[in-house]
Amino acid sequence: MPSASSYAVVFDAYGTLFDVHSAASTIERLFPGRGTQLSQLWRSKQLEYTFLRTLGERYVDFWAVTESSLQYACDALMLPLDPGARHRLMQAYTELAPFAETLEVLMTLRESQRQLAILSNGSPAMLQALVANAHMENLFTRVLSADAVQQYKPAPAVYELACRTLGVPAQRIVFVSANGWDAAGAGWYGFRPYWVNRQGMPIERLDSPPRKTATTLKGLPEYLDHLEMSQG
Amino acid sequence: MPSASSYAVVFDAYGTLFDVHSAASTIERLFPGRGTQLSQLWRSKQLEYTFLRTLGERYVDFWAVTESSLQYACDALMLPLDPGARHRLMQAYTELAPFAETLEVLMTLRESQRQLAILSNGSPAMLQALVANAHMENLFTRVLSADAVQQYKPAPAVYELACRTLGVPAQRIVFVSANGWDAAGAGWYGFRPYWVNRQGMPIERLDSPPRKTATTLKGLPEYLDHLEMSQG
Repeated sequence: MPSASSYAVVFDAYGTLFDVHSAASTIERLFPGRGTQLSQLWRSKQLEYTFLRTLGERYVDFWAVTESSLQYACDALMLPLDPGARHRLMQAYTELAPFAETLEVLMTLRESQRQLAILSNGSPAMLQALVANAHMENLFTRVLSADAVQQYKPAPAVYELACRTLGVPAQRIVFVSANGWDAAGAGWYGFRPYWVNRQGMPIERLDSPPRKTATTLKGLPEYLDHLEMSQG
Repeated sequence: MPSASSYAVVFDAYGTLFDVHSAASTIERLFPGRGTQLSQLWRSKQLEYTFLRTLGERYVDFWAVTESSLQYACDALMLPLDPGARHRLMQAYTELAPFAETLEVLMTLRESQRQLAILSNGSPAMLQALVANAHMENLFTRVLSADAVQQYKPAPAVYELACRTLGVPAQRIVFVSANGWDAAGAGWYGFRPYWVNRQGMPIERLDSPPRKTATTLKGLPEYLDHLEMSQG
């Protein structure tokens, strides 16, 4: 039974549970020698488009954003993107590999009866495919998509989805993200951000430091145990 | 006298009228061999922080954003930023050079009695310093800062400032920007975007193509003449 002091754990998906650059090998087969470069530009443009479309009040879903950012990245690198290549790359995005420790950590957390959720920019269909391909269907209480509010993170309406759906106040949510800006946004909203700094990036200068920084998800169960003991 | 068919011309400042990378020589003196790299990372982080802070409803002015993005960029490149260096780099940002053709184009447009304005993310003090250093005080009807609405572009409230202040409907505003995302945002809002694609970038895949694309400002007076003749 979860105690009164237990926290819900809400995960970002892309980059946090699933490796957005695991598609690089598919890219590499299509565009030899350009896998890493295209993967990085695709990802950074994808994020930029989520920001711009939310700011400009021109929401389209994450599938459309991912497809248009792929087109931009190929244009910028002067790589030809025919319909077959586009299809294969987009398909790869629904089959991203979890990180090595993801499944074990989720299973450990699941045993503790805590509420576990995903809160992601991904469209519902994309998230469903990701979770199914990784055989994680039974691990999450809820898989929440920004699509429900037609805005992208770090708009407060997206983080608010988690509180509303899980029935937990913001300060009882540990929000786990590998994206520094997402951890900062979660902190602005009132969550406890746990930043998985997989790539050794500098801290974002956004006046919202994470409560905890780690390099993988491995220490998360212990962090939660300590947190709850200290407040139990 | 402006005719009934005349358009107001609203300019983005950074990258459009003024060269954000003209500070690279100051950077190069402080950090030999790193001028270009730091200048580019500083700029891209500065933009990202304007997006994130607007989305997260955590506005701070463009001076603060510029300073924190400089700190991040130095952290990322492992360059030590002491208070003296910080001061000199921030100072350089208030003294950015206009592009080679900027002054002449503005003077030509000014002769036609059109309303000319700047609409920029820059703080009022930063914009005042930029314009004064370039001796452009008498060329603009208004110098408008996003600070008035405490949001950054492409939030509609920022573009709306221009309509409200100049008393001109959106469709009578030619909006000139070298930033593809800003041109797209202006198009979303209803302006006529004139994209100065100085760096030969691919078009942004945001479903908002510019009305006109050029490589410098030089053709702008002729574009306006044609536009007004065709509708006059």
